[in-house]
Amino acid sequence: MIQDRIAQHNQEQQHHLPFFQATASMLTAKGVDINNIISKLQQLQIAIPSWALGTGGTRFGRFAGGGEPRNLEEKIEDVGLIRSLSGATNSISLHIPWDIPTDITAVQQQLQQHGLLIDSVNSNTFQDQAGQKHSYKFGSLCHTQDAVRQQAVEHNIEVIEHGKQLNSKVLTVWLADGSNFPGQHHFRKAYQRTLDSLQKIYQALPADWTMLVEYKPYEPNFYSMIIPDWGTSKSLCDSLGSQAKVLVDLGHHLPNTNIEQIVARLMHFNALGGFHFNGSMYGDDDLSTGSIKPFQLFLIFNELVDAAQDEQLTAQTIAYMIDASHNTKDPVADLLQSLENISIAYAKALLVDRKRLHAAQQTNDVVTAEQILQCAFLTDVRSIVAEARHRNGYAINPLQCFTANGFREERIKTRGANATATGL
Amino acid sequence: MIQDRIAQHNQEQQHHLPFFQATASMLTAKGVDINNIISKLQQLQIAIPSWALGTGGTRFGRFAGGGEPRNLEEKIEDVGLIRSLSGATNSISLHIPWDIPTDITAVQQQLQQHGLLIDSVNSNTFQDQAGQKHSYKFGSLCHTQDAVRQQAVEHNIEVIEHGKQLNSKVLTVWLADGSNFPGQHHFRKAYQRTLDSLQKIYQALPADWTMLVEYKPYEPNFYSMIIPDWGTSKSLCDSLGSQAKVLVDLGHHLPNTNIEQIVARLMHFNALGGFHFNGSMYGDDDLSTGSIKPFQLFLIFNELVDAAQDEQLTAQTIAYMIDASHNTKDPVADLLQSLENISIAYAKALLVDRKRLHAAQQTNDVVTAEQILQCAFLTDVRSIVAEARHRNGYAINPLQCFTANGFREERIKTRGANATATGL
Amino acid sequence: MIQDRIAQHNQEQQHHLPFFQATASMLTAKGVDINNIISKLQQLQIAIPSWALGTGGTRFGRFAGGGEPRNLEEKIEDVGLIRSLSGATNSISLHIPWDIPTDITAVQQQLQQHGLLIDSVNSNTFQDQAGQKHSYKFGSLCHTQDAVRQQAVEHNIEVIEHGKQLNSKVLTVWLADGSNFPGQHHFRKAYQRTLDSLQKIYQALPADWTMLVEYKPYEPNFYSMIIPDWGTSKSLCDSLGSQAKVLVDLGHHLPNTNIEQIVARLMHFNALGGFHFNGSMYGDDDLSTGSIKPFQLFLIFNELVDAAQDEQLTAQTIAYMIDASHNTKDPVADLLQSLENISIAYAKALLVDRKRLHAAQQTNDVVTAEQILQCAFLTDVRSIVAEARHRNGYAINPLQCFTANGFREERIKTRGANATATGL
Amino acid sequence: MIQDRIAQHNQEQQHHLPFFQATASMLTAKGVDINNIISKLQQLQIAIPSWALGTGGTRFGRFAGGGEPRNLEEKIEDVGLIRSLSGATNSISLHIPWDIPTDITAVQQQLQQHGLLIDSVNSNTFQDQAGQKHSYKFGSLCHTQDAVRQQAVEHNIEVIEHGKQLNSKVLTVWLADGSNFPGQHHFRKAYQRTLDSLQKIYQALPADWTMLVEYKPYEPNFYSMIIPDWGTSKSLCDSLGSQAKVLVDLGHHLPNTNIEQIVARLMHFNALGGFHFNGSMYGDDDLSTGSIKPFQLFLIFNELVDAAQDEQLTAQTIAYMIDASHNTKDPVADLLQSLENISIAYAKALLVDRKRLHAAQQTNDVVTAEQILQCAFLTDVRSIVAEARHRNGYAINPLQCFTANGFREERIKTRGANATATGL
Repeated sequence: MIQDRIAQHNQEQQHHLPFFQATASMLTAKGVDINNIISKLQQLQIAIPSWALGTGGTRFGRFAGGGEPRNLEEKIEDVGLIRSLSGATNSISLHIPWDIPTDITAVQQQLQQHGLLIDSVNSNTFQDQAGQKHSYKFGSLCHTQDAVRQQAVEHNIEVIEHGKQLNSKVLTVWLADGSNFPGQHHFRKAYQRTLDSLQKIYQALPADWTMLVEYKPYEPNFYSMIIPDWGTSKSLCDSLGSQAKVLVDLGHHLPNTNIEQIVARLMHFNALGGFHFNGSMYGDDDLSTGSIKPFQLFLIFNELVDAAQDEQLTAQTIAYMIDASHNTKDPVADLLQSLENISIAYAKALLVDRKRLHAAQQTNDVVTAEQILQCAFLTDVRSIVAEARHRNGYAINPLQCFTANGFREERIKTRGANATATGL
Repeated sequence: MIQDRIAQHNQEQQHHLPFFQATASMLTAKGVDINNIISKLQQLQIAIPSWALGTGGTRFGRFAGGGEPRNLEEKIEDVGLIRSLSGATNSISLHIPWDIPTDITAVQQQLQQHGLLIDSVNSNTFQDQAGQKHSYKFGSLCHTQDAVRQQAVEHNIEVIEHGKQLNSKVLTVWLADGSNFPGQHHFRKAYQRTLDSLQKIYQALPADWTMLVEYKPYEPNFYSMIIPDWGTSKSLCDSLGSQAKVLVDLGHHLPNTNIEQIVARLMHFNALGGFHFNGSMYGDDDLSTGSIKPFQLFLIFNELVDAAQDEQLTAQTIAYMIDASHNTKDPVADLLQSLENISIAYAKALLVDRKRLHAAQQTNDVVTAEQILQCAFLTDVRSIVAEARHRNGYAINPLQCFTANGFREERIKTRGANATATGL
Repeated sequence: MIQDRIAQHNQEQQHHLPFFQATASMLTAKGVDINNIISKLQQLQIAIPSWALGTGGTRFGRFAGGGEPRNLEEKIEDVGLIRSLSGATNSISLHIPWDIPTDITAVQQQLQQHGLLIDSVNSNTFQDQAGQKHSYKFGSLCHTQDAVRQQAVEHNIEVIEHGKQLNSKVLTVWLADGSNFPGQHHFRKAYQRTLDSLQKIYQALPADWTMLVEYKPYEPNFYSMIIPDWGTSKSLCDSLGSQAKVLVDLGHHLPNTNIEQIVARLMHFNALGGFHFNGSMYGDDDLSTGSIKPFQLFLIFNELVDAAQDEQLTAQTIAYMIDASHNTKDPVADLLQSLENISIAYAKALLVDRKRLHAAQQTNDVVTAEQILQCAFLTDVRSIVAEARHRNGYAINPLQCFTANGFREERIKTRGANATATGL
Repeated sequence: MIQDRIAQHNQEQQHHLPFFQATASMLTAKGVDINNIISKLQQLQIAIPSWALGTGGTRFGRFAGGGEPRNLEEKIEDVGLIRSLSGATNSISLHIPWDIPTDITAVQQQLQQHGLLIDSVNSNTFQDQAGQKHSYKFGSLCHTQDAVRQQAVEHNIEVIEHGKQLNSKVLTVWLADGSNFPGQHHFRKAYQRTLDSLQKIYQALPADWTMLVEYKPYEPNFYSMIIPDWGTSKSLCDSLGSQAKVLVDLGHHLPNTNIEQIVARLMHFNALGGFHFNGSMYGDDDLSTGSIKPFQLFLIFNELVDAAQDEQLTAQTIAYMIDASHNTKDPVADLLQSLENISIAYAKALLVDRKRLHAAQQTNDVVTAEQILQCAFLTDVRSIVAEARHRNGYAINPLQCFTANGFREERIKTRGANATATGL
């Protein structure tokens, strides 16, 4: 039983309690309400995408690990394990057609058993599937031919239908559409065709659903992308209606972009719908979240927390998901690291003395404003994050618990050393 | 008399006629209506900003040339010379307070004498002027204090008043407002304050004026800028009203930005109001237009021409201006080079076989679409641009005419070797 | 017969002669020795890599075209076609193990028949081949384990052996080795291990061979690459010996890098060994050469020509190769465009009035120096490049000749609509 | 007396002792030798440049604060204050000609009184000084004219002479030399002239001095810089001799550069001579060190510590200096923040369990290697850094001590509200 192993693991974490108590007493001395922070951490939920459970790869090659999930059931099993260990996720995002369930009832039962929900459903019009009538080589929702656009629209509507059956409420649309060479696209017409297609999908969207429109400046097209930046995403959402929101993927920005400001802007416009978390040094590198720019991750959460606590702002539901590729690490270990780093960034953002910060901002006391953020960022919150987990019944140190208990080795035994995740 | 010198210069350009005829006959053989292109080139007008007539400099130093204009009158004199030589400019942009006229009537007469208009008027809230009540150290239109914002709003309204007297119809607002450190700004509040301030200025805008809202990702603030990208500019314009439009400065983008697509997007939204032309390799380098990325300049003009010829699109008035700094070259020579490069890019864009291009785009014939653009770009249009000038009575080779005739040396004699342009 | 079709094509190019004559007479009027330029253009040779003859793809998918070569023989056939059409290539680069010949004599005969040589041989330690003993997941020449490094060394030596049989004289080493996460690599040790491995390969290099050491800042590793920049490449070459030279791939640079200066530096050090040509807007985009930054391509050739004409500099043999991926265009069409753009850049660089340029540089006459380069760049040299080809017996317009003659359709017939190039 | 105020401040820091004890006990429980770390922190010394004590500015304007130092004596006074507060600096870097001492003996006495040394002396050939014979507009050490180069060489030799008088041992050469336009420079000749000039300076270098050669990719020249990257710096140093070393300025890199790898490479080559610390988001932003990318700063120190503890590596003396500009903050506050952030990064780097790290690297246990670095980075070391200061007799919280004690207000009283630092 996983629960037994976790209990055993937790008993062995002798450092945890004294470290948590030492940290808590320091923060309490500074006036921090530690239980309030723990309570909020206990509620943080980040979705895991089905495609992040196997080894990804680059165009230059793929070095698979062993014991990877071979089907939707095994993907759910892995997310279930992650949930059991860390508690920071309670949902899985599906990718259609990679994850079309064959037995809906069985899937629903399995999800329930693991305490999991279906988060968003994601359409795929960036690849051609076997037997597909029209190719997406030259675009999907933006394609010049009606028939291709129609096929892509219908695929998205079909994705919604699959989502309905599993009680999802979010359709995520990421378009690889774009051009590789000057002249290939008529920019204005291509935009208009994309909007027209999205409107058809939007009309099929149930009233309690959200459509997330993702942007990306380059890759897999290297001259132009149909939705390269948040401004384009937002303009499309404005035309579609209030159920359409912008999705921010941390790796989808040009060099040096101030992402936290974009996040603040979108929340100011009530236009932010979701996040794809990952780590990035150059582009869409899809590394573990927080592995390269932990301070940026903190500053992003600082905006999220600030907005969440702003009573003048309309409450916004923002879907959190990890979207990364795993080329060198064990996928589950990588995801556990990402969840940890996200939790840490969130905990630090909760520590910000927001009242003093606002006052310093108001009086242009730049040094003090910066110090307030630095003070939160420099605090070691690991034991607080661990305590929040512990109180919820999860592992104090999920990564260590995963590694030490040989979960991967068990999977290699049952799934084989050369298992390949569907779709990748 | 300048006219005599130009006439003399034109007589000496023995290569011009045969080169033009050879070029014209090649293009005619390909079905190009050469006179139509010349006619359009004859109408191209790019404004010259008053601050581009002297040596700029970097924060590391300034290496002034001699004979620079010392006041508004001498700036107008220099723009008049540029007009006489190239004909590609008929207006000057003023910067307030650097260019406040002391004698309106005299300035108007001087302008008329040179065939010049006042293009846009530009406010300056990025520096503190001597005797200014409140400092802009921590922002102007976005400042936390009402009094500072009010001062900046009033300055902008005063700029409009100066513009009215000189028959300008455009107010350009570039905000240096931003923050250098995380925590310094409350992003959402700062945006709202900026919008509120702009609305006050907008209310003072005469009904036949346009307000241009410029964006810039960094410098002089290096963590965040209040208007970092076109999405923010457009959102502000959307809130302000139909007289507010986005201004695109070629140097104000993050690395690798596809600027021509932004231009197309803005025209699709009927939101593009103007351009600041310059050359850039790294950031806001303010080099001569077309000196670094001539193909990009061509692709931008390709979008402008495509939109101008699109009957389904609302006709849009787009203000063209050069905005560059001159650290190594003679400012007038630099501006003549920029005007030439802009004219060349425009001529090439006019050469694009747009009907075939649209057909290739429609059928996803990527190679053909690209070849059509390449064919236009590779054509040597210098003699066509020169012929357009010649037919209008200007110099066949303005740069050579300027250099060979010793215009700068004359200015050094009258203005001195250490003259400094006001404001810089 | 291809030759008949080319002859037929050339007869139909009615514009060519008058356009060439018009261009030649303009250039002659300016003092250009047109035959000298044509003569140099006739000697330009760019190698084609075997892997560029099929559709590449991105990590997001691959949209294959039809009629792609299925084996080494068909790759040679395609390069032979390119040679017949454009004459700008006389060699093919092989990739081991993708292109290991089964019948050396047959391959030699086929090469001879097409007038082709083997250019460089390229090792592959960035993928695991079926049955390979040790994985390169964590590196090859830099690996921490002796056995893995030894396997990678032996592979390179084997590649040299294959090259010897086909009379190649160049080994190109591109290392994907690097790390995705901070801490993964010990930077100093990893460098030293790489150098040690390279030294073992270098010892196996025949005395008349060159070893090219390529650099790349990121991808497929996204935190660090073992050879990220020219400085590292050169330091390795310095340690290896005079047969090791730096290879510059145009797409392997951080944003905004001044590549032409790197080229000049390397030639100054007598350290430049070769080029991989391609087009790039963001990173290693692998687009057609010259499709995005034609001015940069010209400036690079300007340095190459300047160095070649510099009598004080040791003559350097520089290997030119195209290295691109074809995701949207027909590979042969794409390669023909690249060859054309390279030839155009070279022709323009030959047009530079180098004597006047050096004089202007010497006197810091910046405007004149820039104008001299601009004058060459703005000249329409297409008919000169075509004439050079024509005189050599190749097609005046290779791309048009390829498309109009249905060469691809013939290949689809013989090779099938779903042919896949080996190795990709 | 400053010492009294510091003592008073230290008495008031009631949180310090319990926080330090809590932190120390957690680290001790993990096996860390806390006193060893404190001992190393007590020895960390970062030089302060004379030009960082006043408000800098951008090319768009300058918003001076009050009480800035007006001469060398007042600059020394401010560095003395910083030393008294934080103890993390014991030296000042001079900029010639801005800081030429008029009374050497008096300066020496003042330095001694404050416990300060002279760190490096810095030449300035990026500006023209009043009365200077030749202008550096077109370069200094790379200039085409012998006389200009000679003047720049002599200036550098004069700087060495000034340094000798004050017992400096380091000459730092940063060259703004470069070009703004293609064609302006002959790259190869310009490099050779620069090397020739540097060799003349090198010959005048005393045997116990080091010459630091700095690199920068752009600004104030925006097409090419004569020393754009570490590869060029190192090649120059290789030609000069073993007393020439590369200087790394954190803000002098293209977007996304992996600086820590460069640091490791240079130390592997025994070629790293010094650091200029500052914070950067876009380019040479000159923000407070550690304000934007604290994790990168940690990773850089991780390399420095790793090399320092590597017994197989030749011991290297690396000069540390802050080089930043202060546009929004009080310069002393900014410098105190930078010193704190550098100390924190160093302390965290000292915490790295290097033995386990090396083992994980050796076995390609990527997750563990990363976790070891993360574990050090996430530790809150503020109280350890404070304790190191405290034991040395400095302020527990230098920034708070500076602000609360009204040191700036006192300076405004004595120096005036509009004081301007010499040279800026």
